[in-house]
Amino acid sequence: MLNSWVPVEPGSDFPIQNLPVGRMRPRAGAGRLAVAIGSHAVDVGALAASTSRDAVELLAAPVLNPFLAAGPQVWGSVRGWLTELLSQERWRSAVEPHLYPLAEVDLLLPFEVADYVDFYSSENHATNLGTILRPNEPPLMPNWKHLPVGYHGRAGTVAVSGTPFRRPRGQRPETDGPPSFGPSRKLDIETEVGFVVGVPSELGTPVPVTSFADHVFGVVLVNDWSARDLQAWEYRPLGPFLAKSFLTSISPWVVPLAALQSARTAPPEGDVPRLPYLREDPAHPWGLDIDIQVSLNGHLVSEAPFATTYWTPAQQLAHMTVNGASIRTGDLYASGTVSGPGPGQYGSFMEVSWNGTRPLTLPDGTQRSFLEDGDVVTLTARASGEDGVPVGFGSCEGRVLPALG
Amino acid sequence: MLNSWVPVEPGSDFPIQNLPVGRMRPRAGAGRLAVAIGSHAVDVGALAASTSRDAVELLAAPVLNPFLAAGPQVWGSVRGWLTELLSQERWRSAVEPHLYPLAEVDLLLPFEVADYVDFYSSENHATNLGTILRPNEPPLMPNWKHLPVGYHGRAGTVAVSGTPFRRPRGQRPETDGPPSFGPSRKLDIETEVGFVVGVPSELGTPVPVTSFADHVFGVVLVNDWSARDLQAWEYRPLGPFLAKSFLTSISPWVVPLAALQSARTAPPEGDVPRLPYLREDPAHPWGLDIDIQVSLNGHLVSEAPFATTYWTPAQQLAHMTVNGASIRTGDLYASGTVSGPGPGQYGSFMEVSWNGTRPLTLPDGTQRSFLEDGDVVTLTARASGEDGVPVGFGSCEGRVLPALG
Repeated sequence: MLNSWVPVEPGSDFPIQNLPVGRMRPRAGAGRLAVAIGSHAVDVGALAASTSRDAVELLAAPVLNPFLAAGPQVWGSVRGWLTELLSQERWRSAVEPHLYPLAEVDLLLPFEVADYVDFYSSENHATNLGTILRPNEPPLMPNWKHLPVGYHGRAGTVAVSGTPFRRPRGQRPETDGPPSFGPSRKLDIETEVGFVVGVPSELGTPVPVTSFADHVFGVVLVNDWSARDLQAWEYRPLGPFLAKSFLTSISPWVVPLAALQSARTAPPEGDVPRLPYLREDPAHPWGLDIDIQVSLNGHLVSEAPFATTYWTPAQQLAHMTVNGASIRTGDLYASGTVSGPGPGQYGSFMEVSWNGTRPLTLPDGTQRSFLEDGDVVTLTARASGEDGVPVGFGSCEGRVLPALG
Repeated sequence: MLNSWVPVEPGSDFPIQNLPVGRMRPRAGAGRLAVAIGSHAVDVGALAASTSRDAVELLAAPVLNPFLAAGPQVWGSVRGWLTELLSQERWRSAVEPHLYPLAEVDLLLPFEVADYVDFYSSENHATNLGTILRPNEPPLMPNWKHLPVGYHGRAGTVAVSGTPFRRPRGQRPETDGPPSFGPSRKLDIETEVGFVVGVPSELGTPVPVTSFADHVFGVVLVNDWSARDLQAWEYRPLGPFLAKSFLTSISPWVVPLAALQSARTAPPEGDVPRLPYLREDPAHPWGLDIDIQVSLNGHLVSEAPFATTYWTPAQQLAHMTVNGASIRTGDLYASGTVSGPGPGQYGSFMEVSWNGTRPLTLPDGTQRSFLEDGDVVTLTARASGEDGVPVGFGSCEGRVLPALG
């Protein structure tokens, strides 16, 4: 089993089998690209420059986008280089000057987000929401098992973990009379997994399911904060808008697909035949066995199994481009809320509290149906990495500030 | 009345009262910013450099975004400078080396699009579509008169007028059985007016109706090509996705709000009270009296009056940010399809042909319900400018290529 000479605590999110890429700002200094190892971040631009590494101009860029655009060969070669330097003791003196304790750096938004798309691909979640919101109709719409339902979100308000935000205000439906205006009364989370596009495609040319890994570099955790009351009022007929656009938080580290090969798994078998453009090679599926933990104010609320998701990210990408739409470097697309079948596996408070009818009791004795001001929500996750070593995703966290007065 | 020494034919879209900003590439040369006057484009970066103008670094940038970000004072001062140079004969020799006949340049996408939002703000259009698609329900949803319904579209597929595109393929609903896959059978246009954001806002701080002109620089024509059959199947419950994301065409010239002051008009009076954050100052409304012409293969199909739009761009901006969402330089938001009350005033073929039940007969004897391969759709428009001189918007044009085989 490969080990790093950099100390890596047991259970760390960032063993040498992971090597996620992000962006950091040391206490004194400018933003720069970084790779996480144990409880440290490597300044990869400076390291590449000092070792005369080929990809130095990509790694010394102020954002991840040029590296993302470079494609799988460069991704693989940089990964091989870092694996060598961080595993072979003889490189210690060359690397050590470029190591920063994670506790002493700020983590920044790792890439410039081009377009942001949000899917709705967990059958448990879609069924739960349908049951809650439309109790007298079949919970899934007729299209749901034929295509990965999705929509565009606001790219400009995708922010890195830790970015605080105010409770959104907006139009709230009232049972008697016109809508009122004020702070959302049903502020919620959406526990999701996001996919980061590196290599762009041409307008008019779809990306087949089998080309997923030629375009997508890696994976982040996503919390697509949602105001359920605003959403219920605004969403017909064109979908969610202000209920989601106020903030989307992502984890600061992009975990490469290369680190998740051992986590690949077949998605659930569907009971509806998929059209050819949505069929995966059953021998090489792109389901991913990632377990996500949801914590509220430090208390574990839920564990959501991403492996239960009905549509894989390869199918989502094929669908998103089948009409000829092109993708760009920095595009982010997310799975939709991940919920498992059991009540301890729900990825939203809408489901955990069943729309407020079953409030959650926290260890401090307080109850929650939706989020209160001051609440902190943290997503973390684990997957199986190479050699059976678990890899993690860092954390995707956010705190609710009171609404504007 | 102000005149330019540059010849401007009667009826030109680009008298000196207009001065729209775009981006051109001369036959031999790189892309650069330009301002249209008559049938010429001024290379404003080179002109600024040769006359030692202040804003030279903004005007010599390769895209419009830095100029857009500079804000109303800079916009006004550059406009004043250009007005002086193009109206005063004594500047002729300084300007002439930087004039290019429009026939000899390519026009490029004028700005990098950040987020793209599409509204649905024409009451006639929303009523027509509701009547066609949901004949047994009230045509307008209960929310429609309380808020400007809108959604996010795909920024990466916003392209300049003239960009050809393939007819999109996708899942089409079938009356008996599962959906089929193939080229859209109901390819349509959406005739819209778009607004280009210059000055960004802070996350968490709404932009009031009264600050519209502090943020928005100008106006383009938008054709948000739509596949009605794909849309009908995919849109529930999260809204349109692939039915719109394959291409959105915009006109190459951004007409400044400064050129449209004489076109300002009060929007239709609503019969439902607006919440305070959506109320305009009745003395300074941001409705705009713009008449849009829709042509198919050179034949005038429709004239759509933008002044009939229920929600103004100032109200749309206030709504889009009231939840705390921020805006960025290069954001584009469009009105939604503009339709007037009469049948000659519809902004989509869905309405013109009433969903195929009343096909249009063209002068060549052929009929159209929706678009055929090879069809060319052209939007042009006129508004009243200063001194009563009409200003135009150039054209927003696109040709349908056959679907991928």
